[in-house]
Amino acid sequence: MADYTLSKKAGDNLELLREKRPLIHNITNYVVMNYTANALLACGASPVMAHAQEEVEEMVSLAGALVLNIGTLTPYWVESMLKAGKRANEKNVPIILDPVGSGATSLRTASARRLIEELDISVIRGNASEVLSLALEGSQTKGVDSIHSVDKARDVAVVLAQELKTVLAITGKVDLVTDGKKVYRIYNGHELMGLVTGTGCAATVIMAAFLAVDEDLLEAAATGLAYFGLAGEIAAEKTQTPGSFQIALLDALYTIDSIRLEKGARISL
Amino acid sequence: MADYTLSKKAGDNLELLREKRPLIHNITNYVVMNYTANALLACGASPVMAHAQEEVEEMVSLAGALVLNIGTLTPYWVESMLKAGKRANEKNVPIILDPVGSGATSLRTASARRLIEELDISVIRGNASEVLSLALEGSQTKGVDSIHSVDKARDVAVVLAQELKTVLAITGKVDLVTDGKKVYRIYNGHELMGLVTGTGCAATVIMAAFLAVDEDLLEAAATGLAYFGLAGEIAAEKTQTPGSFQIALLDALYTIDSIRLEKGARISL
Amino acid sequence: MADYTLSKKAGDNLELLREKRPLIHNITNYVVMNYTANALLACGASPVMAHAQEEVEEMVSLAGALVLNIGTLTPYWVESMLKAGKRANEKNVPIILDPVGSGATSLRTASARRLIEELDISVIRGNASEVLSLALEGSQTKGVDSIHSVDKARDVAVVLAQELKTVLAITGKVDLVTDGKKVYRIYNGHELMGLVTGTGCAATVIMAAFLAVDEDLLEAAATGLAYFGLAGEIAAEKTQTPGSFQIALLDALYTIDSIRLEKGARISL
Repeated sequence: MADYTLSKKAGDNLELLREKRPLIHNITNYVVMNYTANALLACGASPVMAHAQEEVEEMVSLAGALVLNIGTLTPYWVESMLKAGKRANEKNVPIILDPVGSGATSLRTASARRLIEELDISVIRGNASEVLSLALEGSQTKGVDSIHSVDKARDVAVVLAQELKTVLAITGKVDLVTDGKKVYRIYNGHELMGLVTGTGCAATVIMAAFLAVDEDLLEAAATGLAYFGLAGEIAAEKTQTPGSFQIALLDALYTIDSIRLEKGARISL
Repeated sequence: MADYTLSKKAGDNLELLREKRPLIHNITNYVVMNYTANALLACGASPVMAHAQEEVEEMVSLAGALVLNIGTLTPYWVESMLKAGKRANEKNVPIILDPVGSGATSLRTASARRLIEELDISVIRGNASEVLSLALEGSQTKGVDSIHSVDKARDVAVVLAQELKTVLAITGKVDLVTDGKKVYRIYNGHELMGLVTGTGCAATVIMAAFLAVDEDLLEAAATGLAYFGLAGEIAAEKTQTPGSFQIALLDALYTIDSIRLEKGARISL
Repeated sequence: MADYTLSKKAGDNLELLREKRPLIHNITNYVVMNYTANALLACGASPVMAHAQEEVEEMVSLAGALVLNIGTLTPYWVESMLKAGKRANEKNVPIILDPVGSGATSLRTASARRLIEELDISVIRGNASEVLSLALEGSQTKGVDSIHSVDKARDVAVVLAQELKTVLAITGKVDLVTDGKKVYRIYNGHELMGLVTGTGCAATVIMAAFLAVDEDLLEAAATGLAYFGLAGEIAAEKTQTPGSFQIALLDALYTIDSIRLEKGARISL
């Protein structure tokens, strides 16, 4: 059942974003820094990348949201994330975590969990296997090692969101966003997005920009994903090859306006 | 009043650049490394990125100019910049500083000032707020926290260039370049440049390439900016969206030849 | 004399690659991370970038090949490469080394040589001057400081490959691949590739993907280079400017299929 209220809100959030131009502080991986900075500029936000422990607290104090992405982590960077995150929590700056590769190595899984334990994270976005790896010892979802259907994913997401006390966004063919109570499904997106590095990370920063202008975490996350997915659909109308798709996606983020988003968002409860 | 001598020199500098293909050594931020390397290749120079303290002195000795950009600085990187910069000074390799985000955090402001104090910097390029943050204690410009008109910017730039004993380039709607005596205004450029990350940093590396072939610091800086701005104008004729503009800008840097630049440069005293 | 068996194998390797989608672990330079990740995705492989000493051993154990690229090295990164490389050797994961800038500074030359001495490297890819810098003390090629003809390059490559006990790929106008016995020449490629940063590094990661599906090191290297060169030729049919060429090259890597590659590969003994 399409949620027209939320489609409307998606458009409103985008308009608000372009009016306020919030600063988004990113502590993120080397691979995607350029692309996610450009995605933020294209949507109307102001990106800054800063990871030095001497400045992250000051920088995040100026920001509308903080992105923590562990894609090319080292222990130093994780400490920077903790430092920035603690200050963000003090200042009520929302934090979004992208646990890239969590589950693949112990360092990644342990670091993602540590960030979740020591910080008050607003939203976590990952694919199914990354998100499953975050389950704590004794979790009802511990031992689940794959999600074979959207329904199964739904149940797991609800339980995990409750346990981790955060909004959880599992992106895939259909995106799921839940706070442990409500669950939204977002049907926007295109499979070509999987052929460009950093589209997952770009989804995360777009959600961060929406978090900076919408205090309802669940709705900010869902509307941000709908907007990003719609940009993917529009880009796929222009090109079917990954190099030019990467570029067309940035173009689409820029050209989509609130009316287009309101019409194109496909979110349902 | 258009300066035709300088338009002619812009074209000559570009031709010289493509003949000599100078090596430009960059110690710069992670976000823009790929883009600025491609900008340097497109204009005819040879980029190298190297920041290890074990090699920066050797690398800069091979270079025609050194770019110091503090966009994702840490103390280690600042030390590398100092090491490279001192050797550059010994070897008479011109240095251009891009004080990205100076004024936003103490680490950035202090690091930019330290580089200015300990090194003989040929040119500093930044936007108005970055450049204003460089004013020393007791400066006539201290306390100025914004620049509301081109005339005001002009006065501030002249004073600061004298105090910092360097050529200062303040880029914005109109670019200003001054050595504290003469002031050039460059009218080339396009507002879409503000929607792509790293265009400021790319302006800096293009100026570095011009510094490598033109001993007149002021004229190298002004002609480099005119060339870069003209590339922005040409790119904006092809596309009005930021993803494809990012690409079209590289294409334009490559296709502009000395005749086109001589005709298109809009520099005035 | 065109080697039709190898053209056929190039197509088969590409098909195999798209079927198996091997994980390619990259410890590489900041400048090209985004581009080489996208090149790997476009060809059908799965890229991961990971350099933390705490995780490289675990990560490389999951990989089909390991890429070591010293483009923005520091001693920490070289240690990570050694750690990952030793585990790769234990697990029979092929290693390809890209000695970016070897010969330009002592750190680079010494690091490249140390990697070669301490690890069992399957393939080394570089341009002529990088490869020449790897000659050991007492080498027959020591003192050769440039290669003026393809024939000269051929002789040097054969000797060096024997001395370094590895497959050597020297890329240039014509690419040479040798194991110290057989020598293949690859005629695919386009000069525009030299105007985009990271095309050499991208050639290396594509070869890594081929190494992950073909145990014959020499043939994997030669067929990978033919595929990458052909992508350059196809991209150059679309555009003659470097920005759009960078993108068209990714598109071509994606659109080339095994039949096209079999027809287009130009490899000879």
